[in-house]
Amino acid sequence: MLAPSIILSHPQLGENIGAAARAMANFGLTDLRLVKPRHGWPDAKATAMAAGAAKVVEEARVFASLREALGDLNLIYATTARERGITKEVLTPPEAAKRLRAASVRGEKTAILFGNERAGLDNDEISLCDCVITIPTAHFASINLGQAVLLTAYEWFRAGDTTPPARLEHGPIHRKPTRVELFDLFDHLEHELKESGFLFPPEKRDAMARAIRATIHRARLTYQEVQTLRGMLVALAKGKHRSSRTVKDA
Amino acid sequence: MLAPSIILSHPQLGENIGAAARAMANFGLTDLRLVKPRHGWPDAKATAMAAGAAKVVEEARVFASLREALGDLNLIYATTARERGITKEVLTPPEAAKRLRAASVRGEKTAILFGNERAGLDNDEISLCDCVITIPTAHFASINLGQAVLLTAYEWFRAGDTTPPARLEHGPIHRKPTRVELFDLFDHLEHELKESGFLFPPEKRDAMARAIRATIHRARLTYQEVQTLRGMLVALAKGKHRSSRTVKDA
Repeated sequence: MLAPSIILSHPQLGENIGAAARAMANFGLTDLRLVKPRHGWPDAKATAMAAGAAKVVEEARVFASLREALGDLNLIYATTARERGITKEVLTPPEAAKRLRAASVRGEKTAILFGNERAGLDNDEISLCDCVITIPTAHFASINLGQAVLLTAYEWFRAGDTTPPARLEHGPIHRKPTRVELFDLFDHLEHELKESGFLFPPEKRDAMARAIRATIHRARLTYQEVQTLRGMLVALAKGKHRSSRTVKDA
Repeated sequence: MLAPSIILSHPQLGENIGAAARAMANFGLTDLRLVKPRHGWPDAKATAMAAGAAKVVEEARVFASLREALGDLNLIYATTARERGITKEVLTPPEAAKRLRAASVRGEKTAILFGNERAGLDNDEISLCDCVITIPTAHFASINLGQAVLLTAYEWFRAGDTTPPARLEHGPIHRKPTRVELFDLFDHLEHELKESGFLFPPEKRDAMARAIRATIHRARLTYQEVQTLRGMLVALAKGKHRSSRTVKDA
């Protein structure tokens, strides 16, 4: 699937162009277009800031006007930080990402347009685009150019990402214990705690054991961790016997 | 609701601390904690980079060890770029944001921990935290420190944000037209197109008119835009009559 082009209109700082390029590489975007960058092109500061994303910077194309930069595109979203009094749809970054992906699936060439650091896009630039993207913020709404590119690129990537919301890093030894392996841990622990005199008085023993089982369930142990806990239990119980012997011997 | 603290362990560059502070201010986070920043503290580069978020930088606290920085917290998520072979839950930023908000609602003090620019967090640092956050990326996985703070802060803000996915900027004159106002536009346009000879041949007239209506529906015009289009139509039709008169006169 063709990722959106990123177009920076009149960017002022090479550092921000480099940060934008790095963010693009993080999220699988490759086509960077620059309209009249203030300090010319190439820009050593952009290359330095791009770090591992040098290719995006090297392959960036420079255009003399915004119209030329947009010429071959089908769907273009303009980013703005504030309302402009224009009757245009304003999208959140995730909604924009969803629509950009849908357009890309239909074979359309898409892009996201960013204005310069000082003033953003002007209304004439916005009038060349289909919709507006505004990133919701707290009261301090001024987002750095590189960071704005990052957020929209991230949302585009996320819209097609299948990473599960929560997962456990695990290898073969990190399988979940069967219930009988967990019961063996309960029995082992409750036996040693009873022996040690911890589960006292006897009429509270069952309630105490059940509370300890709840703690263990909540930890969602792996098989390996169950085995480690049982080893710790053996060592501690030995220590206790040794220590009580020592006390007795003394 | 108390927003998560942001903890930077051994950060190397003031610029990144400043970028992190700015991102925090963008998304309503205020408590920045630094563990042994490499170039000491305060750091002029951090202040410069923070732009409008100077307050976050000024109020940042410096700690001599990570354990001290974490002491008063209840729930801490560690950010890592790669798998560590630790049996810990790995969360996406949106899932982490959801859980951080839930903990905050329960009155817990929460935090997100970031390692330094060169090597990230080490396994000992991660072992002090509850879960891991990994930001899904394309093949180029190295995210800048300030940008990683931005993405997690953004997701935290988004998890409580009620901005509608798509909305129209509008004032009183941007109300939607009633259907009769739209029908008046259809009638007006179809009348003028018929007069001009555009709706030809007669047997195709109805199908052509229906296709034009579909175009107009898709534009989801406001009342104001309907009025503007009718004004344009009047002007163009006048021109046509004038022009046909001129041709006749010639």
